[in-house]
Amino acid sequence: MTGDLLIRSVRPWPNSLDVPAVDVLCTDGLVASIGADVDAPPGVPVVDGAGGVLLPSFADVHAHLDSTRLGLPFRPHSAGAGLGELIDNDRRNWRSAERGVAERATHTLGLTIAAGATIVRSHAQVDVDSGLDKLEGVLAAREAHAGRATVQVVAFPQCGILREKGTADLLEAALRAGADLVGGLDPAGYDRDPVRHLDVVFGLAEKHQRGVDVHLHDAGSLGAFQVELICERVAALDMRGKVTISHAFALSSVDAERQRELVDLLAEHDVAVTTVAPGVREPLPLRQLRWAGVRLGLGQDGMRDYWSPYGNGDMLDRAWQLAYRNGFRQDALVEMCVDIATRGGAAVVGRPHGLTEGSPADLVVVPGDTVTAAVMDRAPRTLVVHGGRVVAAGGELV
Amino acid sequence: MTGDLLIRSVRPWPNSLDVPAVDVLCTDGLVASIGADVDAPPGVPVVDGAGGVLLPSFADVHAHLDSTRLGLPFRPHSAGAGLGELIDNDRRNWRSAERGVAERATHTLGLTIAAGATIVRSHAQVDVDSGLDKLEGVLAAREAHAGRATVQVVAFPQCGILREKGTADLLEAALRAGADLVGGLDPAGYDRDPVRHLDVVFGLAEKHQRGVDVHLHDAGSLGAFQVELICERVAALDMRGKVTISHAFALSSVDAERQRELVDLLAEHDVAVTTVAPGVREPLPLRQLRWAGVRLGLGQDGMRDYWSPYGNGDMLDRAWQLAYRNGFRQDALVEMCVDIATRGGAAVVGRPHGLTEGSPADLVVVPGDTVTAAVMDRAPRTLVVHGGRVVAAGGELV
Repeated sequence: MTGDLLIRSVRPWPNSLDVPAVDVLCTDGLVASIGADVDAPPGVPVVDGAGGVLLPSFADVHAHLDSTRLGLPFRPHSAGAGLGELIDNDRRNWRSAERGVAERATHTLGLTIAAGATIVRSHAQVDVDSGLDKLEGVLAAREAHAGRATVQVVAFPQCGILREKGTADLLEAALRAGADLVGGLDPAGYDRDPVRHLDVVFGLAEKHQRGVDVHLHDAGSLGAFQVELICERVAALDMRGKVTISHAFALSSVDAERQRELVDLLAEHDVAVTTVAPGVREPLPLRQLRWAGVRLGLGQDGMRDYWSPYGNGDMLDRAWQLAYRNGFRQDALVEMCVDIATRGGAAVVGRPHGLTEGSPADLVVVPGDTVTAAVMDRAPRTLVVHGGRVVAAGGELV
Repeated sequence: MTGDLLIRSVRPWPNSLDVPAVDVLCTDGLVASIGADVDAPPGVPVVDGAGGVLLPSFADVHAHLDSTRLGLPFRPHSAGAGLGELIDNDRRNWRSAERGVAERATHTLGLTIAAGATIVRSHAQVDVDSGLDKLEGVLAAREAHAGRATVQVVAFPQCGILREKGTADLLEAALRAGADLVGGLDPAGYDRDPVRHLDVVFGLAEKHQRGVDVHLHDAGSLGAFQVELICERVAALDMRGKVTISHAFALSSVDAERQRELVDLLAEHDVAVTTVAPGVREPLPLRQLRWAGVRLGLGQDGMRDYWSPYGNGDMLDRAWQLAYRNGFRQDALVEMCVDIATRGGAAVVGRPHGLTEGSPADLVVVPGDTVTAAVMDRAPRTLVVHGGRVVAAGGELV
């Protein structure tokens, strides 16, 4: 599923207005060379980058493809306040969608790819209400877009593990059915027993040799305690590099000294962090995390679902959102957000990524004077390339 | 400059998917009737709303049209931290723009109108460095788009009034040259003498019978003190309904009881507030302000200038930003942001506005299932109408 390709006329990041455009030759799905006036080997397709900005493709590493209603008639938000009510609201409504999970997830994954993301990690809800239906829908979407994107799927206990009998068995069934990682959800704040919750999660991960991705909305010292519990298990099971904490609001709701300790702990255990750039929560300490070497990625979260009307699959728009929410004006900081949305996310899923020769030819071309200008303009993507093949052009799948 | 028009097939706010589209007849620049299958009077132009959502047009009531670089080659952000450095950076650079102020302001005002705003209040910097050059550029932009939008211009002392000799005289010259309002800037925090600063501002306003719009970034008790000073002058000069405080960060940086006092004070003196939905500052208490009856509008602030790379003239995008930054998920709250961006801003500039018969036919049609869906989609505007004439269609001026 990899190919050869010559992309004419792009300006690779870092770039500026006065640097001439170059060509990029992709061979066997890898970046083979970048330079001026590259000759097209016989039979290699040639596409025009139109002088756009060349970036590594986007990585949406925190999606919920199973709940999306993008492309369906808009439904007013019907949930009350609080996580429990959001969960119940989804249970009341998801079966009445005009299309099944597979069709909805496939549509939204397609939008995500067309907007330039070729690396996606999606959670799929596993619970006693929906069983494996939602997981199977997301797996079907991955299959439908095979060759267009690298997709990881998390078996996600959206309704807790301990609160409803049978969830742990369903999580294990999900791993056997094709899920790549074991998820978790607020082991203390929602599931009420952090140790037993994490023991189930890490027990399954160890047994099936899978990664872990835990939603941790719990903030303050309770969240910080669970960061420690997770890192203790990473050390005990030698799972450095295989665990992600999503949201991690604890990091931005403790004092500076405690924050430094937590960041160091994450770095020491090579635990990754993902954010969705939420509007009201205090932003994560992005620079501190990166300086410490913590892998840090960005995601869409739910996309127009029973949880929230936000989210559109466009990771360039989400990078804008991350920059805006942090008040970044300096180009280097705006571009840091793009780096989080591209290479950062690739590091979260453990995939090499970049514009260097030998990297996977997962690329996106977007109109813009510079990378920062492209973030501000958020124009439709000129080209999206996965494994050396054009998978989208002009904002549409090909 | 007003006209007659029949708009076919729109769904007026409040709307829903299952309400059939109606027609809107505009006569002499006013909304004459809204209903099913309205007959087109002879000679009245007919346009198709394509079933889109009908809203009152947007009002950008805090723009800086004089500094915009939208449409020019992107320049990296070159300012250091702090208001003083931002001011100095602009002084170092603005004369080197590839186009003059009038041409830049005209271009960006055009983008603003094409995106659905037909009510605009723009600040124009008046200082000893630029004299009235920037003001004249903004006045020229207003003239260039006469008939497309109602534009107010504020003579804005961006560099303080007291710090540089001659500024007060320039402000007065600006009022004689056509500015509609007198501006102010952080009377204490930046200009270092709140009483003398406000005495100049309100003195000019009284002498020339103009409104006032003061930038007040000063937060906490220092900002709150200046809100009081402003209200004292409003009472003394009987200027209820004629004064605006822009940004008003003081409101979101004091405790809840003090906040309530300040909101009541603003309501009692009918002092309006504008926000630009900043990314890092604590959001204003939107609901409290509206419940108290304070006129509250939304603006773009600078648009891709030496101050910030953000801003694109699109007030629907800015309404999205306001909703996102406040974490609003309920449709009623998202639509409150649209109300702030339309009727709220119109109230700030003292213009009647709405979808009722007899209101000015200042309208925008945007694709979307509902108002909230339209905010999330942020699609190009189908139609923009000012004074009963189509001024933009499909996202482009006509």
